[in-house]
Amino acid sequence: MAVKEGSFEELRAKMLASAKAGIQEAYSSEEYALIQAINAYLETNKSYNLTYERLTEWFGIYFPEIRVNNAKSLADLALLLTKPEQPSIEEIKKIINNEQMAKIIHEKSGKTIGRKMNLEEKKAVIEFAELSNNLLRVLTSLEDYIKIASERILPNTTYLTDEKIAAELLSKAGSMERLATMPASTVQLLGAEKSLFKHIKFGSKPPKYGVLFKLPVVNTAPREIRGRIARVYATKISIGLKADYYTKKFIGKELKKTLDETVQKIRSAPIKPKPQMQQYQQKPQEQRRGGQHRGPMHGHSNSHFDFNRKRAYKKDGRR
Amino acid sequence: MAVKEGSFEELRAKMLASAKAGIQEAYSSEEYALIQAINAYLETNKSYNLTYERLTEWFGIYFPEIRVNNAKSLADLALLLTKPEQPSIEEIKKIINNEQMAKIIHEKSGKTIGRKMNLEEKKAVIEFAELSNNLLRVLTSLEDYIKIASERILPNTTYLTDEKIAAELLSKAGSMERLATMPASTVQLLGAEKSLFKHIKFGSKPPKYGVLFKLPVVNTAPREIRGRIARVYATKISIGLKADYYTKKFIGKELKKTLDETVQKIRSAPIKPKPQMQQYQQKPQEQRRGGQHRGPMHGHSNSHFDFNRKRAYKKDGRR
Repeated sequence: MAVKEGSFEELRAKMLASAKAGIQEAYSSEEYALIQAINAYLETNKSYNLTYERLTEWFGIYFPEIRVNNAKSLADLALLLTKPEQPSIEEIKKIINNEQMAKIIHEKSGKTIGRKMNLEEKKAVIEFAELSNNLLRVLTSLEDYIKIASERILPNTTYLTDEKIAAELLSKAGSMERLATMPASTVQLLGAEKSLFKHIKFGSKPPKYGVLFKLPVVNTAPREIRGRIARVYATKISIGLKADYYTKKFIGKELKKTLDETVQKIRSAPIKPKPQMQQYQQKPQEQRRGGQHRGPMHGHSNSHFDFNRKRAYKKDGRR
Repeated sequence: MAVKEGSFEELRAKMLASAKAGIQEAYSSEEYALIQAINAYLETNKSYNLTYERLTEWFGIYFPEIRVNNAKSLADLALLLTKPEQPSIEEIKKIINNEQMAKIIHEKSGKTIGRKMNLEEKKAVIEFAELSNNLLRVLTSLEDYIKIASERILPNTTYLTDEKIAAELLSKAGSMERLATMPASTVQLLGAEKSLFKHIKFGSKPPKYGVLFKLPVVNTAPREIRGRIARVYATKISIGLKADYYTKKFIGKELKKTLDETVQKIRSAPIKPKPQMQQYQQKPQEQRRGGQHRGPMHGHSNSHFDFNRKRAYKKDGRR
């Protein structure tokens, strides 16, 4: 079809081309791939844990004497012990790396008190154990990619936290632009949306951290100072994010240094006994009596409600 | 160690041996293996669906033109399109079985508007797509075992429902003995425990079916008669279960015949307009005013509570 210059058709073709280019441009950013990868990782990890639990219970029917504390060993043992020939001590030792346990398992492997498998059962169990190992392989390869991509897109944030926490923050925010323009207080609570809205709506305790709870420095700290540590981390992360997105400079080392100093200060400060929490529960109510949210008032006079409120906090409060 | 006859040691050894035999006996029943298999199936199925959703979204970044409606085709396409050489139309057609779609995908495969993958991304996507296919393989092999075992342990129940529903009923009850001694009304509500307790505690609508909702005859029936169909199914299943566990006779055919007749009767009866539900919500409250459960009363005067109640019902009411 010949197209006249300046005609409607030509304009339309140009528009389409430009829209297409715009879409390609939007898709081309690696951040969306990273968001998909971290979500895939988190979901696969859940599946992996479920599979491990199920295999523990299932294989326990056939071999109740086995006690292992990780999914890989369990799956490997299940695969070894379902082979037709009896395994040697060496093969067992290779898997569990514990001479005594290996001896016990080897001894029992001929005369376990568990159920004898029939053929179809064995096939299903073997497939399931192999699935567990496959899930682990996928997790490793997702981890590899997340590490590379996080360090490429979020070098400062990754340096301050780790590649998975950085990627999860990005995934919760939805895009680098949104994440980089967020105030530190929002960064602090990313991933705690549910309990934040519980707090706003029903007056439960406010959350102190979301994704950042996964930082070992936060979750191993004494309960009283966890919130403060999360807070200073969020502040520095928020600066790091701006460097990641706008200036693309690596300022992680300096940030980390002042961050460590502040955390050290918080840790060495004397921990006050906590009357604050109890005050909180009563004081805001007096103030709120005329306000919009009447949830908490009802909460205290209605036992069902109170029950829900506490449970909700325990479940979601610190993710 | 020589053991004197009638001594404490001898007695102890006997006791231990008998306890061991008892455990082996308990483990030897296939029902426990079936319970594990159906739970593994349900969990793996969830993982499979999650993986499918994630792969749709993830691969959509690289190839937004693809629209497929099942996980297997998507994973196969992802694996095909990440190969270094461009795929032929035939290869694509083999996967999606739709000439027109195959042509479009083939045409776009060179010049998609999606993102170009880098090497590490590609590896992660390929692993993830392979996981999806592996999950499907595991599901199939679990299904095979469940079919064999259900027909062996629960022949009548499997005939009336199907192997997965029969196995799930067994899993919810915990053992054949408990399942076989349950009244039909309990069988009807197996799997609806959460909404049953919501009903008892908070006065929400009572559930009408649990696992049995998975029966096509129940979930495709008009809403007004679903409960009644579930009820008659539960009655016949409960008879079938007793035959499965005690007499071990196959009476499935007769049961199915009368069952079909009754369902036919229910289906052909005129459907009453439903004033019942509305009556229900008001009447029991008057009666309960003096009773123990004060939930519903509060529920109606407290808007938060009402909100929770309705949402809870929608989420769990009919699993």
